[in-house]
Formats: sequence, C-alpha cells, structure tokens
Amino acid sequence: MATSYKFQGWMGIDKDATKGKMVWQEYEPKTWTEDDVDIKITHCGVCGSDLHTLRSGWGQSLYPCCVGHEIAGTAVKVGRNVKHIKVGDKVGVGAQSGSCLDCEQCADGQEQYCTSMVGTYNGKYSDGSKSYGGYADYCRAPAHFAVKIPDGLSLAEAAPMLCGGITVYNPLVHNGAGPGKKVGIVGVGGLGHFGLLWAKALGCDEVVAISRTNSKKEDALKMGATKFIATQESGWNKKNARSLDLIVSTVSSPSMPLAEYFQLLRTSGQFIQVGAPEDKIPAFSAFALIAKGCKMGGSCIGSPKDISNMLDFAVKKNVHPIIQVRPLKDANQVVIDMDEGKARYRYVLQNEVHAAELKA
Amino acid sequence: MATSYKFQGWMGIDKDATKGKMVWQEYEPKTWTEDDVDIKITHCGVCGSDLHTLRSGWGQSLYPCCVGHEIAGTAVKVGRNVKHIKVGDKVGVGAQSGSCLDCEQCADGQEQYCTSMVGTYNGKYSDGSKSYGGYADYCRAPAHFAVKIPDGLSLAEAAPMLCGGITVYNPLVHNGAGPGKKVGIVGVGGLGHFGLLWAKALGCDEVVAISRTNSKKEDALKMGATKFIATQESGWNKKNARSLDLIVSTVSSPSMPLAEYFQLLRTSGQFIQVGAPEDKIPAFSAFALIAKGCKMGGSCIGSPKDISNMLDFAVKKNVHPIIQVRPLKDANQVVIDMDEGKARYRYVLQNEVHAAELKA
Repeated sequence: MATSYKFQGWMGIDKDATKGKMVWQEYEPKTWTEDDVDIKITHCGVCGSDLHTLRSGWGQSLYPCCVGHEIAGTAVKVGRNVKHIKVGDKVGVGAQSGSCLDCEQCADGQEQYCTSMVGTYNGKYSDGSKSYGGYADYCRAPAHFAVKIPDGLSLAEAAPMLCGGITVYNPLVHNGAGPGKKVGIVGVGGLGHFGLLWAKALGCDEVVAISRTNSKKEDALKMGATKFIATQESGWNKKNARSLDLIVSTVSSPSMPLAEYFQLLRTSGQFIQVGAPEDKIPAFSAFALIAKGCKMGGSCIGSPKDISNMLDFAVKKNVHPIIQVRPLKDANQVVIDMDEGKARYRYVLQNEVHAAELKA
Repeated sequence: MATSYKFQGWMGIDKDATKGKMVWQEYEPKTWTEDDVDIKITHCGVCGSDLHTLRSGWGQSLYPCCVGHEIAGTAVKVGRNVKHIKVGDKVGVGAQSGSCLDCEQCADGQEQYCTSMVGTYNGKYSDGSKSYGGYADYCRAPAHFAVKIPDGLSLAEAAPMLCGGITVYNPLVHNGAGPGKKVGIVGVGGLGHFGLLWAKALGCDEVVAISRTNSKKEDALKMGATKFIATQESGWNKKNARSLDLIVSTVSSPSMPLAEYFQLLRTSGQFIQVGAPEDKIPAFSAFALIAKGCKMGGSCIGSPKDISNMLDFAVKKNVHPIIQVRPLKDANQVVIDMDEGKARYRYVLQNEVHAAELKA
C-alpha cells in the first residue's frame, strides 16, 4: 500500500557508525499490515543501547541499521485492526516492536519477556522484514507496541521515558518502591536520573544516589535524591551498610563493586540490575546474599501497558525528565557527545520540521 | 546454679577433627540465666556445617569445639522467665541459639538475620560464654531458640529438620512453592532430600530433582520428585530451559553450573542459594537475569517461629525424612562417613541411654 511519504533515517553502515559515520538514506520499512501504525516522528531519545548497537558491542549488528527506540510523534496511518490509536494521535514506541502475542508472557502482559521479542531496531519481524528505529522521519511498527502519549506530557519529554524511563520505573514499582522504603539508584546518567525522579515521585522515604564521584551531587539532589554516596570515597560501603531496601543499578561496567553494593542492602533487600554489561559481572560470595536473605535480580524495559501506566504516573506526579533537545540533522555529533558522556541527562533528537508542524 | 548432670560431648581439638580425632570430654556450658533451658539430648543430626566448622573451613574455629545443631531431646531444667516450655517437654534447637531480640530483624520474626546472631556451636554469647553443640549428652541454650517438638514426630526425625529441614523449607514457602508452581531442587543430599519432600508436600505441580549423575534418581522419585535431571548428560540445560518457577540450590561447589541453572528458570523465576560455598560462586552475565526478569537470592535457616510452623506442617502432611540413626559413641566414624558422602540422606546421632530412658 503506497504512502505519500518515504522512510529515511540516519543509518549506521558499519562499526564506525558512532564516530560520526551515520549516513542519511532511505530504507524499506516492514511490510504493511492492518495491525500496524505509521508514525511521523517528532522526537527520539538517544539511548546507550543505540551506541552498543551502532558499534556491534552486543554482537554483530544487521547493517545498515537505523537506531533509536525512544520514538514519539503522531500517527499518520493506522491499520484497520487497530482499536486504541487513530490518525492524529500522539503516540510513542519504545525498545520493543514485536512479540508473538500468543505465549504465556504475552498473555500475562509481559511482552518484553516473550522469546519472540523483536527490537525496535536491529531486529527482524516474523515476515522477514527488518526493524528500523527512530533517528528517522517516519517509523512503522505493530500498533500493539505503540502507546498513546497523554496530554500533559510533551513529546520531547515523553520520548526518553519510552526506554530509559520504563527501564527503571518497572523494577521500582514491581519491587515495592514507595512510602516506608529506602531506595538507592546506582549511576546518575540517562537511566539513573529517571530512577531518582521516579523514586521521589513514588514517595520513597529515602532516595539515595550512588555515583563514583561527587560531580553530579548537586544535580542528583535537585532530581530528588535525599542523600548522595560517592564510591570513590573510602569506607562508603561500611558507612552506609544495611541502609537500603531496594537498589536499582543502571551502570553497566563489568568492574562495578557488586559485593560492596550488596553491603548497602538491609535484610531481605533487593538489588536489581538494569544496566547490561558487555562482559560478565564480578563473581561474589553467596554468603553476601545468604547472610541477609537478599536477592539480586534483572529487569528488562516494560510492556506497552507498563509504559502507559508510567506515562500516566508522570502526568499525575508532574515528573519532567532533564533533557537536551537537539536537531535530528546533528545526529552524528549527538552520538559522539553521548559516547563522551556529555549528556545531562538525556539527548532528544528533534525533527525540526515535524515538531514545527505539530505546534502550528 | 548446680545441676545433677555434667556437660560432656565430642570435642574437636584442631583441624584434624573430621579425621576421627574428636575426643569425649567435659565442657563448661553457658552461664545459666532464667531465660535458658537445659536439654537432655536424645538425638542430633549431622550437618555439613559440622564438618566445615570442625576443620575450620569457613574460618578459624574456636577449639575445643563441640558441633551439632540439629538437637532434639527433653527439657530437664527450665528458667523461670520461660513461658513456652516446661520440664519434660520434647524440644529442639537448630543452628541458632542467640540474637539481640531487640533489633528490627528480631522484632520481625527474622532472628536468623540479626547481626548479633549466635550459632549453636562455635559461637559466643553476649556474656562471653562459648556455645557448644549437640554431639553431647546435654545442651544449654536460651529458650527463645528452643522449639517444642509436636506429638506425631519422633525426636530422631525432628532433629535433622531443625537445620537441614528449615534451610530448604523457608525459601520454598517464602517464594511461593505450592500448587501451580514448578520447583527444582539442586542436589539430592541432606538438604536436597528435604527440598523434594517439602516441595511434594506443598503440592507443587512439578518437583524436579537436579543432580550431577543419575545415581540418586530412584531415591529422588521416591521422595517426591516428578522428574530427574542429571547435569552430566549433555544438553540438559537446553532440553529443560524455561521450565521452572523456583529453584532451591543446596549444593556448595564454587564450580556449579550457575548460568545453566538460570536457563531452567521461567520468566520472573527465582533461584535461591542455600548451600554456602567456601569460595565465590561463578561469575555470570547480567543478561541471564535481565532477559527473563529473574532473581537470584540467598536464604539462611529460619526463625524459631518458622521452625515451629515447619514441624507442624511435617506432622500435618506426614513428612518423614530419610535418616540413618547411629550411636552417639560412634560420632567420629559417622563424621568420616558423612565426609565421604555416604549419608542416605541424613545421619542422626542417638544417645542410646537417653533415648532408651525416653521410651521406657
């Protein structure tokens, strides 16, 4: 079925893509079905996963590859079978764009754990089509994975919530973060800053930012942290031992001081890892978990329903991420800046033309 | 306060204690208080911890050391402050004989996680007295940690439940084992055999025994396993991938195939380690937990209340451990046999005189 628009985006061609080598070119989107939606993209957040994928850090990527999975815009074409979205709606797509919709996980509203999970980019749909992300002007995706963005949230702010936001929101909400709980967030970056915002909005008794140095202390306190731990300072682990009910770790360094993080947990405390190291995490003694009845878990993004709940929560609690909006045309430089750790705290690419049209 | 009996037991004198070198001698029990109970021991189970401690495997032990923390017998002297036990009652003491009784953990009924936890042997009470275990004729302990053994359970059978039993009962019960759940038990030894018995009695849909070889397959099926996995057989992990909701691991080898065990977990599955390796557990990729939203936890024995609940459950569900009763006088040989892996599935030392008196 023909469309009046073409699909074009910034394409990584090889492993050097993060070095300013993405090229703007047309691509063939997934074969249209009446379960799909086409989105005219206004904004796309820049996620660490984009860089891992552009340089094949998690395994060989399917080049040419258009990354970006924090996609926000307006629906411009909606399949006949789609009930929850109509043309003109503000919608978003996160890191997942496909699953079998038939298995136990999908039936349970845990599509993100479906074994037939299709990533929003660098993936393949069941019909063999490749998936392409949001560093682009349009995006086509199965509507099941497109969520409506509620009024009260700008598309620029909603975008980074679709992966970065949900990645930390889910482990907090599903592990009891709230009044009466003391919560730690390891890492104050794109994900970690969301962790602090959410933990505060959830009403946790304490929100502790855990970072290597003190450089982001002031920012973290503004985001909602009630306390800041710099792990560069000796004795930080003993000084703060047994102080936290829940820790969400957003860092992905395989040399993270895991055993020391565990020391911060109270009895029956939980440590949830969401950062995904390219290597194994450090070996630790089972006593660290046994002696306090603690758990270490992992958590992966969230389902469309989880994302909708999070967006509603953001509106209700007036949560605003700290973003830097930059023009889509500068995507190559933005990726370089992201790689150099300059983001404070999430870059959001903006399609200047589409954003202007929406405002007009 | 004088007693008509002396405290005598098998004492480890140095690291060679597991090699037939324990000696029978008198010792000075803890200083009596009106919160204590003296127990005339009829039975004491032989736990792997006894061997670790006798040879200083978990750190230098406080020799001379009388091990044994699965102690059953009758109360022969009861402190004035003690309400729940009277002289003549059948009582048991597990691996813990002290805690502050004042902290958050103690108030929550999680005395086993109190930071002032005192082990039933090789420990020190707050008054400086040493704690001595149950390879002995009498035992003195704070009555808070002595539980009444219900009618319907023999002292010989109750004994090994007090540490071995509760160590696996607690993580099963507190992590949802029961109807609708598929549960795996790693290791078919003293702890693991309890895991199979409990999981069956709890009504789990599937009870899967996971062992290195097939040698204990027949026994495991008798204990309640509905399925047996031998990890010596290639492809066991892929063949059984995503089949279990909960795994309790009783093995303590630092070279256990942890990543492969994780593969057996279903989405949101949990792996609880109760065996305590002397070394670190193997490093693994965080993806193993993230990709399925799984958790790895630890669990340590149980509180006196947990133990009471377990004993009642055993009576109600007619659970009988598979034990080999051996004379206390043969303790040295029993320890050697235990060390050689000959127990099927728990040795219980019996004080022949005390047991005969009880029956008379």
